[in-house]
Amino acid sequence: MTALTRFDGVLEGLAARHRLRRLLPRRGLDFASNDYLGLADSALLRRAAREAIDRGVPVGSGGSRLLRGNHPEHEALEAEAAAFFGSEAALYLGGGFQANQALFSTLPAQGDLVLHDALIHASAHEGMRLGRADTRSFAHNDADAARDELRAWRAAGGQGQVWLAVESVYSMEGDLAPLADLDALACETGAILVVDEAHATGVFGTEGRGLAHGLRAEVLSLHTCGKGLGVAGGLICGARVMVDMLINRARPFIFATAPSPLDAALVRASLRALQAGPGLQAAARKRIRHAHDMAFHSCGLEGLHSQIIPVILGSDSTAMGLAASLQTQGFDIRGIRPPTVPRGTSRLRISITGQVTEPEISALFQAIAACRRGGS
Amino acid sequence: MTALTRFDGVLEGLAARHRLRRLLPRRGLDFASNDYLGLADSALLRRAAREAIDRGVPVGSGGSRLLRGNHPEHEALEAEAAAFFGSEAALYLGGGFQANQALFSTLPAQGDLVLHDALIHASAHEGMRLGRADTRSFAHNDADAARDELRAWRAAGGQGQVWLAVESVYSMEGDLAPLADLDALACETGAILVVDEAHATGVFGTEGRGLAHGLRAEVLSLHTCGKGLGVAGGLICGARVMVDMLINRARPFIFATAPSPLDAALVRASLRALQAGPGLQAAARKRIRHAHDMAFHSCGLEGLHSQIIPVILGSDSTAMGLAASLQTQGFDIRGIRPPTVPRGTSRLRISITGQVTEPEISALFQAIAACRRGGS
Ligand SMILES: Cc1ncc(COP(=O)(O)O)c(C=O)c1O
Ligand SMILES: Cc1ncc(COP(=O)(O)O)c(C=O)c1O
Repeated sequence: MTALTRFDGVLEGLAARHRLRRLLPRRGLDFASNDYLGLADSALLRRAAREAIDRGVPVGSGGSRLLRGNHPEHEALEAEAAAFFGSEAALYLGGGFQANQALFSTLPAQGDLVLHDALIHASAHEGMRLGRADTRSFAHNDADAARDELRAWRAAGGQGQVWLAVESVYSMEGDLAPLADLDALACETGAILVVDEAHATGVFGTEGRGLAHGLRAEVLSLHTCGKGLGVAGGLICGARVMVDMLINRARPFIFATAPSPLDAALVRASLRALQAGPGLQAAARKRIRHAHDMAFHSCGLEGLHSQIIPVILGSDSTAMGLAASLQTQGFDIRGIRPPTVPRGTSRLRISITGQVTEPEISALFQAIAACRRGGS
Repeated sequence: MTALTRFDGVLEGLAARHRLRRLLPRRGLDFASNDYLGLADSALLRRAAREAIDRGVPVGSGGSRLLRGNHPEHEALEAEAAAFFGSEAALYLGGGFQANQALFSTLPAQGDLVLHDALIHASAHEGMRLGRADTRSFAHNDADAARDELRAWRAAGGQGQVWLAVESVYSMEGDLAPLADLDALACETGAILVVDEAHATGVFGTEGRGLAHGLRAEVLSLHTCGKGLGVAGGLICGARVMVDMLINRARPFIFATAPSPLDAALVRASLRALQAGPGLQAAARKRIRHAHDMAFHSCGLEGLHSQIIPVILGSDSTAMGLAASLQTQGFDIRGIRPPTVPRGTSRLRISITGQVTEPEISALFQAIAACRRGGS
């Protein structure tokens, strides 16, 4: 059997189980993207793009950062990001996926332990699979469980550096890591705290600096630039020596064309916009509060923490059916199925983006309530 | 010892062996990038960027292609790329690195064999390490050696699909794969030919379609968009069923923010420019011919095949010394050391880009000749 025949079979099997993924057009109000501040399609970033082009910023880097690809826009962004996120140094890569892969495959060494939250993102797993450190997971958002795992690893003879890896805001749950407890644990045990701020950057913390800013432990933070910041890329922020190790050892950094200088210029513009005044972040927080109120009053959803609102439905077909019904009513909402989320937790992932208004948010939760009453 | 102390030691060790990599500014004439057609910094792409912004193309995608990140610019690019590169379908990812990683980690299955040229790019290795297929390498550019390895694998009981993986133009050698022989081998044995066209796209083949266009075997080709095409990203071109498998299974595709729609629009503009007339490609080929002439007459370099001209010097210090001396004379040329190239083959990698003129090319090879006569 050739691979082509085999693939036909795999795809038919997925279709039969309603698991075939297809690229679908955008349609309807944006409750599905990670454009939390509405920057991706904003007049602000369009203006910044025109300005950057006018001052001669190229649209391609032409090579790896270690060769000719290194452009002053990259270095300016890294200096500004380090200042903004409160680290000694920063490194800009083509995406958060590569940033996580670079970090986890390069920095934890053989004999070290990556102790990670059970729900950490696929890109961190990709890095861990490529790296040589031991890995252990702990129950989601449970700092005590993390402590127990760490102890068990030490008791079994583990001696190396511990890397305690979490997300500040979880991409599919929308809940927040217990960072104060994790910070205490890291300080007490000498662990390095790795905080993926993908869904916090721009939304949480002073001026959108995220939630890891100001912790006491040694911290590495990761900030994706294609979500709240509206562009593309990923920033790793931490000690100079960590960044220098990545520059010297991280394959997705060394062996890849640098992101375009234009994208770097646009991310700079987003960081400047966050510091120019509280408007963007305040508007996002107001929308999110309104969404939490509506979710509670219309649908009884409680314990919401962020712009990401999961509506857990269990089966694939219920989730996909409800998503389809909302789509026909003009809401772009996607059902999320395994393997992106654990089996039996298929859900709607509602994202409160900068592309929607409060009345639209109200309409959405009323529509969800109506669908569920109608049993669809 | 904490990781920070350990890293200090590693970096000091690298410095002592003159292997510490640092980000250096661009300085001097561009003989170091992969901007082979001069598009990255061109009026053509600046105009295309302004036009795209004016017609409302966003600067960020806001999410994964499987969620809201899918934008009409991505789909238009993929349709145009498939037509241009002669495949049934195409998929656009954030970079060639991710494209290779996605391809090799997803498509070859357990029981398959990835039979690859010994000098294949680090990003293909990253994919192979994440995948489950067997891997074997064959002597660089030796189709007979590939046949022998394939036979040996079959003799040892290997039964699955064979994926024959090469680059059409090698990034550090500048030589060309024996594609006719490899095509024959693939046809004869039912292997799928995977051709990384990173350094061929835009430069080689009719209208810059690369060298795999029109082969008889089942072909998957990879086209990076941040080299000849001047922007960023990577395209995988092949059968529809392969692309559908990637959409359903490739983690660097599924779990990553889509490239910016603006970048997709710019790559479309580059593809259109290649089809608008032979100017860009003809100018590149003329420059390259001139460089080969000069390399031969001034430096005795023979057997050159492409815009990439390696000057192999052996030791790190000779390579880095000659690069430094050329840099002080205004040529941006980089020395390339292990692990990017095999031990003992440290070299200058001269790249004939669209940012230099024929007189500048002449001046470079005269300067190299003078340095070498001077023993520096
Ligand atoms: C928590 C988290 N980390 C990392 C990533 C990857 O970042 P990017 O999409 O920029 O590649 C994502 C999303 O895609 C994410 O949700
Ligand atoms: C042969 C080859 N393949 C793939 C890549 C990776 O592509 P990208 O730089 O777009 O990530 C490169 C260069 O970086 C390359 O030289």
